[in-house]
Amino acid sequence: MEKKTIAFVLYPGLTPLDLVGPLQVLSVLPGYEVVVVGQTREPVATDTPVRLAASHTFAEVPDPAVVLVPGGMAPTIKAMTDETLLSYLRRAAANADVVGSVCTGSLILGAAGLLEGRQATTHWAFLEQLAALDAKPVRRRWVQDGRVFTAAGVSAGIDLALHLVRTLAGEDVARQVQFGIEYDPEPPFGPLDWAAAPHEFWAPLRRTALDEGLAGSPELSARLLG
Amino acid sequence: MEKKTIAFVLYPGLTPLDLVGPLQVLSVLPGYEVVVVGQTREPVATDTPVRLAASHTFAEVPDPAVVLVPGGMAPTIKAMTDETLLSYLRRAAANADVVGSVCTGSLILGAAGLLEGRQATTHWAFLEQLAALDAKPVRRRWVQDGRVFTAAGVSAGIDLALHLVRTLAGEDVARQVQFGIEYDPEPPFGPLDWAAAPHEFWAPLRRTALDEGLAGSPELSARLLG
Repeated sequence: MEKKTIAFVLYPGLTPLDLVGPLQVLSVLPGYEVVVVGQTREPVATDTPVRLAASHTFAEVPDPAVVLVPGGMAPTIKAMTDETLLSYLRRAAANADVVGSVCTGSLILGAAGLLEGRQATTHWAFLEQLAALDAKPVRRRWVQDGRVFTAAGVSAGIDLALHLVRTLAGEDVARQVQFGIEYDPEPPFGPLDWAAAPHEFWAPLRRTALDEGLAGSPELSARLLG
Repeated sequence: MEKKTIAFVLYPGLTPLDLVGPLQVLSVLPGYEVVVVGQTREPVATDTPVRLAASHTFAEVPDPAVVLVPGGMAPTIKAMTDETLLSYLRRAAANADVVGSVCTGSLILGAAGLLEGRQATTHWAFLEQLAALDAKPVRRRWVQDGRVFTAAGVSAGIDLALHLVRTLAGEDVARQVQFGIEYDPEPPFGPLDWAAAPHEFWAPLRRTALDEGLAGSPELSARLLG
């Protein structure tokens, strides 16, 4: 039986943990081949010093069964206007069983028109922007609305990916994978205290990401910044 | 004031989440420059389809303040006999404030002679091998013994990195970073149920990793396999 393909979409400047967390989880899924697709196979910069290189080009993987888009800051906002990337996503999503994102990757899905009327989530600091893209923002760790799976910020991609393994291969397999990556989290200060969320610290970071990312796109800028 | 350097060590075949998890956490630490060091800056394979490329060569970063080694399966075991890598680690560790590892990266630290008499941890399936390297294995999410910081398997690198941020920059900064990566874990099936740990499933995986990784090293093979 031919394996189905899971495609992670790579683009310059992304947050690498958004991609590598769920990639590590899904790369051992039986019956699926995981690939990382990009415009080229050359290494691209991330928002950390590591560079990531794709295994395949967009053209080589037109019809994945699962397509997942990671997020990031200004470069992710900029990717919302990258017609090559958006065209790939629309083409890949046309026949996909699952269309998903991690963190602000959902803003790219929204820009591609793939979230219309869907419940979805994103990084906690960008939920308002998600609403401006015709999605119905939900503040949860991950959200599944039909075939659309979206995760909250960065590390939430790991939780989403385990949920996806359960959906595609059953809970026993997902529990095995969880042991494989020893995912038994112990955040040193416990879970996040949302009452102390640093909204004021993040407001200028969000503003800078949006301003930089949308500098050449007044229309989308007006839509997202109101 | 010149920034101190945090060096993540990249080598072929590693588990990318071991490196990218703590890299994402530490890359925003004030007062520190994070780098990814390797033998070359060319992309190297991982145990997933993504390839990672270093930002610096070993020669360019001889004296980091913090040096961290990620783990993996057979390629990590093989790296235990890579004299170029081991020499770099010994040189880097000589003046470092922190020497650390994620997952089976601690076996590489042990092979470099950097764990003698130290409490340390590793992926749950490799604790016996750690004991064979003169370390004192401890089954915890992360272990700090003096300047040596080791994490359990794969995803534990995120918890260790937050602990390290607290150690180097204080708890307020570490909590900010935790919000940045929205690290508020919700494993879909809850924490790991250690009473149901798949020891039988992992015994042949471990054996294969050790056999393949140590094929050219009978002495170390005898030490680790007994």
